[in-house]
Amino acid sequence: MNKFKIIEIKKSIYSSNDEAAKEVRASVEENNTFLLNLMSSPGSGKTTTLLQTIKLVDDRYKIGVLEADIDSDVDAIKIANSGAKTIQLHTGGMCHLDAKLTKQGLEELGVEDVDIAVLENVGNLVCPASFDTGANKNAMILSVPEGDDKPLKYPKMFKICDALIVNKIDTISVFDFDMEKLKERVFKLNPNMKIFPISAKTGEGVDQWVNWLVEQTSSTLK
Amino acid sequence: MNKFKIIEIKKSIYSSNDEAAKEVRASVEENNTFLLNLMSSPGSGKTTTLLQTIKLVDDRYKIGVLEADIDSDVDAIKIANSGAKTIQLHTGGMCHLDAKLTKQGLEELGVEDVDIAVLENVGNLVCPASFDTGANKNAMILSVPEGDDKPLKYPKMFKICDALIVNKIDTISVFDFDMEKLKERVFKLNPNMKIFPISAKTGEGVDQWVNWLVEQTSSTLK
Repeated sequence: MNKFKIIEIKKSIYSSNDEAAKEVRASVEENNTFLLNLMSSPGSGKTTTLLQTIKLVDDRYKIGVLEADIDSDVDAIKIANSGAKTIQLHTGGMCHLDAKLTKQGLEELGVEDVDIAVLENVGNLVCPASFDTGANKNAMILSVPEGDDKPLKYPKMFKICDALIVNKIDTISVFDFDMEKLKERVFKLNPNMKIFPISAKTGEGVDQWVNWLVEQTSSTLK
Repeated sequence: MNKFKIIEIKKSIYSSNDEAAKEVRASVEENNTFLLNLMSSPGSGKTTTLLQTIKLVDDRYKIGVLEADIDSDVDAIKIANSGAKTIQLHTGGMCHLDAKLTKQGLEELGVEDVDIAVLENVGNLVCPASFDTGANKNAMILSVPEGDDKPLKYPKMFKICDALIVNKIDTISVFDFDMEKLKERVFKLNPNMKIFPISAKTGEGVDQWVNWLVEQTSSTLK
């Protein structure tokens, strides 16, 4: 098992989140690192998608991961075993990451040798949507079993994301899930959303998502 | 379509939640109403489970529902169409319901003619676990696609609940889900948890859950 560090996060008392987000942006730009904020419900497959992403990005870019969890290290263990530089952030009950916690995490991760830093946010479709982490791009995962009505119920998350990964498409035959209805609802909230149907389990469609990520990275880095 | 009222909730500014929870408890006791707080991730099947529950409880008890959503009325419409008295609570971005919001909702619902009031909380495994709503019992739903590792990642929710409904068991063959491992993890956090594997879609197992709910109600009401 690869080693990774655990940070116990203190509650971010001062609410100057936008200021801190600017600092994060400046710092990743200075370090020539692309920062991605990855969000979703619990159990939508963030970690499995990330493992597939790390595999497909391969040696084009070096990936580092900040794993945010209320408790437990199960996901960080899996990511660290993939060979990616990993930091476990324990949020101590907090339901989202803000820019200050992201900054703290990036300092601990050490981004000098990291091209793409991925923030695996707390599993939650509500709170993370309200906090700018300073990331270059926001991506979210919706899994097929959660249903095609989620944009109606959690609109803010769908509005603030640049990319939507629709995971677990290998199970679509056992659920009442209408991909066209989902797209219609998403584009109504966010006409510029890039949508990538994938199965992180079988690998189907992951290449399209990774191509987008690599494009975003190459156009951001110097 | 049956009619229901929509309340736009103001943020609960004063944090005397425990005091408000006591008031809710006193008020439902006085009205001879059993209050259930139902929680889960987004897309785990709260509304479908509730529809099956209303059907099976039938004329033994009269059910009223408080539907908490950040936005949209899709779930309230479904519940109201079942004939149950329904109130839509719009939380305006808030990620959970607290006791004050519950009190406001119950007043609007009018519990004089309601035996079981169900609070369908915001889809979120994190924040609702930290706020006592004043309910007699807390129940949660975990759906099979979310995975058997969720007690490790969201322990507080599993600690504070009296009953765990494991939904979507009709899809268990397409997921890597170990029911025994789940039970072991749950009982480690909460040895008294009642666990009900169900399929809200097919109706399988729902009778066991409803029997438990009816028992809790009959032993609480005068």
